Amino acid sequence: MTTIGEEDDILLYLDQRRTYLVRVEEGKRFHTHKGYVELGDLVGKPYGSPLKSSLGVTFYALRPLVRDRILKTDRRTQVMYPKDTGYLILRLGIASGSRVVEAGTGSGALTCALAEAVRPGGMVYSYEVRPEFQRVAASNIDRAGLMPYVELKEGDVTEGIDEEDVDAVVLDLATPWLVVPLAYRSLAGSGVFASFSPTIEQVMKTVAALRGQPFVEVETVELILRRINVAENRTRPETLMVGHSGYITTARKVLGQTS
Amino acid sequence: MTTIGEEDDILLYLDQRRTYLVRVEEGKRFHTHKGYVELGDLVGKPYGSPLKSSLGVTFYALRPLVRDRILKTDRRTQVMYPKDTGYLILRLGIASGSRVVEAGTGSGALTCALAEAVRPGGMVYSYEVRPEFQRVAASNIDRAGLMPYVELKEGDVTEGIDEEDVDAVVLDLATPWLVVPLAYRSLAGSGVFASFSPTIEQVMKTVAALRGQPFVEVETVELILRRINVAENRTRPETLMVGHSGYITTARKVLGQTS
Amino acid sequence: MTTIGEEDDILLYLDQRRTYLVRVEEGKRFHTHKGYVELGDLVGKPYGSPLKSSLGVTFYALRPLVRDRILKTDRRTQVMYPKDTGYLILRLGIASGSRVVEAGTGSGALTCALAEAVRPGGMVYSYEVRPEFQRVAASNIDRAGLMPYVELKEGDVTEGIDEEDVDAVVLDLATPWLVVPLAYRSLAGSGVFASFSPTIEQVMKTVAALRGQPFVEVETVELILRRINVAENRTRPETLMVGHSGYITTARKVLGQTS
Amino acid sequence: MTTIGEEDDILLYLDQRRTYLVRVEEGKRFHTHKGYVELGDLVGKPYGSPLKSSLGVTFYALRPLVRDRILKTDRRTQVMYPKDTGYLILRLGIASGSRVVEAGTGSGALTCALAEAVRPGGMVYSYEVRPEFQRVAASNIDRAGLMPYVELKEGDVTEGIDEEDVDAVVLDLATPWLVVPLAYRSLAGSGVFASFSPTIEQVMKTVAALRGQPFVEVETVELILRRINVAENRTRPETLMVGHSGYITTARKVLGQTS
Repeated sequence: MTTIGEEDDILLYLDQRRTYLVRVEEGKRFHTHKGYVELGDLVGKPYGSPLKSSLGVTFYALRPLVRDRILKTDRRTQVMYPKDTGYLILRLGIASGSRVVEAGTGSGALTCALAEAVRPGGMVYSYEVRPEFQRVAASNIDRAGLMPYVELKEGDVTEGIDEEDVDAVVLDLATPWLVVPLAYRSLAGSGVFASFSPTIEQVMKTVAALRGQPFVEVETVELILRRINVAENRTRPETLMVGHSGYITTARKVLGQTS
Repeated sequence: MTTIGEEDDILLYLDQRRTYLVRVEEGKRFHTHKGYVELGDLVGKPYGSPLKSSLGVTFYALRPLVRDRILKTDRRTQVMYPKDTGYLILRLGIASGSRVVEAGTGSGALTCALAEAVRPGGMVYSYEVRPEFQRVAASNIDRAGLMPYVELKEGDVTEGIDEEDVDAVVLDLATPWLVVPLAYRSLAGSGVFASFSPTIEQVMKTVAALRGQPFVEVETVELILRRINVAENRTRPETLMVGHSGYITTARKVLGQTS
Repeated sequence: MTTIGEEDDILLYLDQRRTYLVRVEEGKRFHTHKGYVELGDLVGKPYGSPLKSSLGVTFYALRPLVRDRILKTDRRTQVMYPKDTGYLILRLGIASGSRVVEAGTGSGALTCALAEAVRPGGMVYSYEVRPEFQRVAASNIDRAGLMPYVELKEGDVTEGIDEEDVDAVVLDLATPWLVVPLAYRSLAGSGVFASFSPTIEQVMKTVAALRGQPFVEVETVELILRRINVAENRTRPETLMVGHSGYITTARKVLGQTS
Repeated sequence: MTTIGEEDDILLYLDQRRTYLVRVEEGKRFHTHKGYVELGDLVGKPYGSPLKSSLGVTFYALRPLVRDRILKTDRRTQVMYPKDTGYLILRLGIASGSRVVEAGTGSGALTCALAEAVRPGGMVYSYEVRPEFQRVAASNIDRAGLMPYVELKEGDVTEGIDEEDVDAVVLDLATPWLVVPLAYRSLAGSGVFASFSPTIEQVMKTVAALRGQPFVEVETVELILRRINVAENRTRPETLMVGHSGYITTARKVLGQTS
């Protein structure tokens, strides 16, 4: 049984809408509008343990998952939703040992999810042109303990990708079509290209670029997630929902010309 | 650069609708309506290589990903769609080293995806009451090379789960609500419960059962995947789509009573 | 060409988000944060005419359609969305001359849409138990000029429907299943029953009640409306959308037992 | 109570999937794989009446609604779905007395729905360049008894619209953007433009054209209809659904320039 240690991150759970990603330290108080909790009291306790606040309200100390880190990431950039991240990773077919190129790093949320998927033995090479984002990303990735599986690269991916023979290239940037020929060169045969784009014009240009290279299984999808409110005699899909985050385009590299 | 070896599985690609999961063997011919291909010719070539059929049609030898294996699984049971599998794995938060209980095994498609996520160092304990399904699953898992990360267990999961302190319990069976108390006991604190159910009545009963145990973050969602046909002046969502596969309900175990 | 007259309602349009349903009167000023407009200036002008505010901002005087009145209705009750209203009216098959029973009246938004569909020669008999809603509805219906086609009835529709041989019965209330046998009696042969319900439990009970009477073509649907933001290089479905308003259940009465 | 007369159309209902639009005539037998029925037996009976086939199977004689005629229309062209037609009519705001221009007529399905909405006192002017479609449409409209409210016009609407001061213009053709300036001229002030297009490129061009004229409330939506299978312990959205039919773009004419 894993117990909570000094310096571990926990996800402090109050209710369905309020959770806090905090670091456990002896003597550290975490203040909320429901009173403060003594984080040091958690040391040596199992994950999932309750913790009473000074006002007698019960919190729970959950073990942070990558999905929690995605949602807690400093949001200077728009973060990809878990629905899209999960599908993307499955489509990429990456797993322990895979080598992946990502651009742009943004705040590092997708980077963390990719690193978690390829560890141990794999590596994520993540490009970002804006140093201020890279600093945020480095902090997020480090906090998640995933830095051993990530190489942060400052640079414009449209000018070149250093890595060769990689298993996957993932793009979340404004002009993915410009990167398509570089991605083709960087990928191993049968490697998977993926791009996430909010607008249909980006998709059109990216698909046209993919069709200009030897790629097969070019596919564009969008995922719509509906939350269902389940309660006796009041069960129904939620009233307000996210209607659109972006389109996911994927393709696989083949060698030689496609007819 | 990985090259194709004797006895390797490849995904033989003809076009968007026609792919074949076949084993490479010297001297083995694979016959299609577009002529036959000599699979032995692929040995030593890189993945992604083209292969001409006897009728001059080009095929490509792709490296099979777990998503391909999911779709090629012997379908005596309904198989979970990649959209659902990807989301499920991200919600479960499992990765290399995780220990997961699954029930039922079915044809092993989800088992493969889970095993791929937890390898190396992790383990999937998969329960199935019907021996004939277990045999199919064993064959699929073995072919994918994932048997080291799977323990197939013949038995009715509603009667007991042997494992303790597991990171996740995943259910894809007709009466998930009966398993909720057993899943609670099997899970480590902060561990994740997930259930996939086609009908809303199953969801209602499962959510009611989860609310009767110390679980937090009880959530039910459905994922809708739309394919977009992208072609100049003809871009549009596809006409016919899968409207519903199932609902995904997840929750996290906490210790002690939730208020 | 119809021109705007004294005492006519107009929909004063400022931009995509701001429109105002106002009555034209000589000497009446309508104040907005963009200055005031002299409504009397519109008399004798064609619909669609521009009108400058005191701050030089252009407004337009649109002719109010039923859909505008639906959205401008006093919202003490939740109002059915145009997507649902349009489908409902087509499913009901009502047109000029039809006789329709409605319950409950609510704020009269659906009543207006039904009355507009059945005029002239038709009639909407609308039941409401709460007198305070009926007063609001009467005002809305009168303002739309549709009172000649509506009979407002104060009473509990679960206790009886006075009308016979009607073409359609439409329910938007909490317990539609209680009204099903009464609706059957009130409908002419081949008449259409429709019910709008936000929750799936209401739908389940209503469908079960319909199956207990000689109804055919029992069908439940939900309509999802996505707005598309169309703008050069930024075309995409809108980010936030209404995920669920309600389910629409319809059926047709036949004579004698269904097998 | 209306009874079925000689020469009336009825919708002969067998089950959820099998209905037949037939004309009642004395001595006419209608043959199905469930035996034949004597249509003449229905004369003088109320709509909704049962009718036994020669094999003892019960059929029901429903009164055909416009939605039935839409689905039974000769389908040489693709027919607009009821979900789209209902929304369109509500958006157009047309009712008894309205004057509407439509192009193209196609097989007349939408024409019937529009005519049903504007009768009596209104008129649908429907343009079609292909005489063979116009003949089919004339037959469908005549059979529905709606010819008094329709003027079929053979001609290319992109070359001109004869009518002025109309309440609405509805387009269901391949190049709606070419018609936008003509539609503007034909519409009365505050009149509504609507266009139905399967592809996003058609939408983009149409919206661009609308923005080049004094139109306000330019809006593009798509409607997704999900059928729900409601049955005890098996309630769920249907598995296969229509994922996309088309986009509906609407706008209202104002006089003078929009800023």
